[in-house]
Amino acid sequence: MPIVYVTRHLHFSAAHRLHTDMLNDQKNKEIYGLCNNPPGHGHNYELEITVRGEPDPVTGMVIDLKELKDIVEKEIIAHVDHKHLNYDVDFLKGIVPTAENIVIAFWEQLKNKLSNCELVELKLYETPRNIAIYRGE
Amino acid sequence: MPIVYVTRHLHFSAAHRLHTDMLNDQKNKEIYGLCNNPPGHGHNYELEITVRGEPDPVTGMVIDLKELKDIVEKEIIAHVDHKHLNYDVDFLKGIVPTAENIVIAFWEQLKNKLSNCELVELKLYETPRNIAIYRGE
Amino acid sequence: MPIVYVTRHLHFSAAHRLHTDMLNDQKNKEIYGLCNNPPGHGHNYELEITVRGEPDPVTGMVIDLKELKDIVEKEIIAHVDHKHLNYDVDFLKGIVPTAENIVIAFWEQLKNKLSNCELVELKLYETPRNIAIYRGE
Amino acid sequence: MPIVYVTRHLHFSAAHRLHTDMLNDQKNKEIYGLCNNPPGHGHNYELEITVRGEPDPVTGMVIDLKELKDIVEKEIIAHVDHKHLNYDVDFLKGIVPTAENIVIAFWEQLKNKLSNCELVELKLYETPRNIAIYRGE
Amino acid sequence: MPIVYVTRHLHFSAAHRLHTDMLNDQKNKEIYGLCNNPPGHGHNYELEITVRGEPDPVTGMVIDLKELKDIVEKEIIAHVDHKHLNYDVDFLKGIVPTAENIVIAFWEQLKNKLSNCELVELKLYETPRNIAIYRGE
Amino acid sequence: MPIVYVTRHLHFSAAHRLHTDMLNDQKNKEIYGLCNNPPGHGHNYELEITVRGEPDPVTGMVIDLKELKDIVEKEIIAHVDHKHLNYDVDFLKGIVPTAENIVIAFWEQLKNKLSNCELVELKLYETPRNIAIYRGE
Repeated sequence: MPIVYVTRHLHFSAAHRLHTDMLNDQKNKEIYGLCNNPPGHGHNYELEITVRGEPDPVTGMVIDLKELKDIVEKEIIAHVDHKHLNYDVDFLKGIVPTAENIVIAFWEQLKNKLSNCELVELKLYETPRNIAIYRGE
Repeated sequence: MPIVYVTRHLHFSAAHRLHTDMLNDQKNKEIYGLCNNPPGHGHNYELEITVRGEPDPVTGMVIDLKELKDIVEKEIIAHVDHKHLNYDVDFLKGIVPTAENIVIAFWEQLKNKLSNCELVELKLYETPRNIAIYRGE
Repeated sequence: MPIVYVTRHLHFSAAHRLHTDMLNDQKNKEIYGLCNNPPGHGHNYELEITVRGEPDPVTGMVIDLKELKDIVEKEIIAHVDHKHLNYDVDFLKGIVPTAENIVIAFWEQLKNKLSNCELVELKLYETPRNIAIYRGE
Repeated sequence: MPIVYVTRHLHFSAAHRLHTDMLNDQKNKEIYGLCNNPPGHGHNYELEITVRGEPDPVTGMVIDLKELKDIVEKEIIAHVDHKHLNYDVDFLKGIVPTAENIVIAFWEQLKNKLSNCELVELKLYETPRNIAIYRGE
Repeated sequence: MPIVYVTRHLHFSAAHRLHTDMLNDQKNKEIYGLCNNPPGHGHNYELEITVRGEPDPVTGMVIDLKELKDIVEKEIIAHVDHKHLNYDVDFLKGIVPTAENIVIAFWEQLKNKLSNCELVELKLYETPRNIAIYRGE
Repeated sequence: MPIVYVTRHLHFSAAHRLHTDMLNDQKNKEIYGLCNNPPGHGHNYELEITVRGEPDPVTGMVIDLKELKDIVEKEIIAHVDHKHLNYDVDFLKGIVPTAENIVIAFWEQLKNKLSNCELVELKLYETPRNIAIYRGE
């Protein structure tokens, strides 16, 4: 049976600040530059979830994209949309919210929530120019 | 010799309806929701064809992109553009026109039509948010 | 008080066929070409609604964009999304569903539904390349 | 002499919170919903500045777009990029940072800084779907 | 009868160099900077043509967009696509090919070629960030 | 430790001509068509650089995207932006500037300039429709 990849695109708007307690303020400023601004700044994040699987021989679908959207909205978007990622999100507590760390945390949120298909990639656009991708490696 | 991937982006506008004769009307409505609307709905589909090969040492091209475009227009676009995918397309007869099934059918149309390069991926955007990818697996 | 214009972007997917009973089949084919395909074809329509008004001195908003979105979804999107514009839409009955005619019909649907701000423009993208704009002139 | 409009597109990333001290917390929540989240959320704002004027008969330019970009970066972008609009921006102090209020404040910043051409429109995309436009009316 | 605006989007790829014989080389470099590079540089130009008129009561169209496209391709695109704007285009001879001057020259090419509708705006994207608009003023 | 891919998007505007001295003029015209226009034509090229690596356990970054941007601007963009690729670029001398050949040459420029992360893909958009990808194979 052929294997097809299916991608769903969603978005959310959030604030974040890049800062780690493992370094002093001076060092934080050097490393994170403008992203270290104390009250934070923000982005319209774009998120692409890709799963793979065999299309069901009756329905012709790997997964109902409406169902995939509902799962991602419940497990991820509802927690981060219109939030400040440093303060408001349980599963990001204690993590510097770089795009790299966010996309790994999103993977952990999603990985056991999908049946009949395999999560293969999360792609997070912080801006249209800055992108992080995690494939569970 | 280095291997390069070359992608060509095309588009077409088509109507479709998600409905399978293997299930009754009630079940079709449950599974496909709004996509089961009897006369159908439609999309501006975007299609990306990716091939790989060694650039020709004289021309510097894996394949002339104009030639690739002409092949895809003849084998695929001419059959589906401004058509209703449930009624007008020979190579989609008997198939529920989900993005997954369409992209597999497109692959079958194209796979023996390219010389000197290898078809490696078809990516079909049903909308900018709903995407299916087939790699011949 | 300053006047600000506010635009909200929405989208819907629909099928349509360009055909008029005022002309015979031959003439319809000549005029509408591929768009005259009997069962229709379709598009991911994009719709931009622009209103103008004074921002409220307390809230700083001309209109709550969430409220504007809800009104447009109720008055327009719910009627046309995942529909065939020739068969399924009461307010398009008897109209050839060209982008021009659709955008005028949408204006009629919306024009008396907005309070505290003035509807000034509807912009309808049939594709990213074909656009119709109506300003109530 | 012909009059030409010239538009320059820039972007910045910022956090903001919609909240007014003129209303109590309960009322703020009702009006602003998710946008009232105390530490804020954020956006990749896109800003389009349009000026009009006669192209210089020697240079063929209404204004050097590099110069226009430099002015807007100095007068606006440097103040708001990677900032929290409620705390970090002098010219937004005491203003609820709705897109409407921001775009009016930007106009005030820019209006006396351009010579040989006339500022005619500022268009601010808070997201690709939510847009405010100010024309100095 | 209602008036509708119709916009068609086209594109072309061209090289150009900003340089005027009315100034010496030193002055050209100061004014045009990188754009003065002797053999030129280039762009994927995007062009939007907007016309206005009453939709035909029978066809529902202001103008057949396919016909509008054909006219613009014949009068403009065929002359500039895959060309060097300083050397290859008759109607740009003796003009510094700034976006401002190009869009005025395009208007002259088109203005007498459209019947039953009025040309109201040409919008030329030199890049997604640099735009010139001409409305015949 | 998890492996994350990070992508940075940049752009440049350049002219080029497809022509090889290994073939006569007639043959060049047959193969390259409009792209063989003697003074050249041009594009707004878009370039996506993807690297992979483990996010640093302190900073949460695979590589500082600002640093990645600075490296790519120094090694690639500064050499090609606002240039004619056939005449102005040392590392493209003697190469037909097809997208395939350009992307391989860019890889050679970058491959030894990145520390702590691995260059895995360069994706070059000549236009939004024509794309070449190199992965060092």
